[in-house]
Amino acid sequence: LDTVTLKLVTIVAERILKDRVVEDVLNAGARGYTISDAYGKGSRGVRASEWEGPDVKVEAVVSQEVADRILKHVSTTYFKHYAVIAYTETVEVVRGDKYI
Amino acid sequence: LDTVTLKLVTIVAERILKDRVVEDVLNAGARGYTISDAYGKGSRGVRASEWEGPDVKVEAVVSQEVADRILKHVSTTYFKHYAVIAYTETVEVVRGDKYI
Amino acid sequence: LDTVTLKLVTIVAERILKDRVVEDVLNAGARGYTISDAYGKGSRGVRASEWEGPDVKVEAVVSQEVADRILKHVSTTYFKHYAVIAYTETVEVVRGDKYI
Repeated sequence: LDTVTLKLVTIVAERILKDRVVEDVLNAGARGYTISDAYGKGSRGVRASEWEGPDVKVEAVVSQEVADRILKHVSTTYFKHYAVIAYTETVEVVRGDKYI
Repeated sequence: LDTVTLKLVTIVAERILKDRVVEDVLNAGARGYTISDAYGKGSRGVRASEWEGPDVKVEAVVSQEVADRILKHVSTTYFKHYAVIAYTETVEVVRGDKYI
Repeated sequence: LDTVTLKLVTIVAERILKDRVVEDVLNAGARGYTISDAYGKGSRGVRASEWEGPDVKVEAVVSQEVADRILKHVSTTYFKHYAVIAYTETVEVVRGDKYI
């Protein structure tokens, strides 16, 4: 089976940030994304308080380089004022060449 | 990019267990969680029959220690009588210090 | 904590493929699955155009062998004409014996 090792980037953010995060992901070089609804609660670096409310989960399969770019941008742009989680996982993707 | 290696714990459970599982996750030491709706089918250790119906997916980014505590509690408490899946993955998290 | 290392297979496909993909996953040997709604956009190997619309995400925890079978079938069957993403991740599962 012909697979490629890539990164799955997941960003969970307040739902009002959906369009901005999607644009960020594409600008960083992702060739596509998947979004889904979620609901979150917790201490996510938001100053002085906890977040609880509707979230959006944005996922993209990308190269390590694009993953780093997304995470850097997201952390720099949103972490200070918004409830945002961002992480990467290693995935084995079929026909990985179409993601890079 | 400053990342920390942590665990993403995922629990997929019958939807009626949502509040209990969320409480378990927080009691085990998670500082937040994300929940989403799902629908499941399958053999999940439920005695004598298969499960099919509305599920909830609860996710939390935590330390290995908290992950172990969550999985242990969940398996001990629910596996005998409920349709529950629980697993962990390794994730690279930006600003991981806020999860531990 | 008694865990087993298995594969989480994720397939993100156009929603009209839901029943077919679910059947494929079970036929390949999965003992259960979880489905959730998503919305996708991107270049996914669909000939001549980009996909944008309602997706379904199908997930299953399986052995490496079953994972390979699912990915092979999905890529052979759908990649030419449909917008489909398929990847695997390594997961540590509690009571993993019930998945294999």
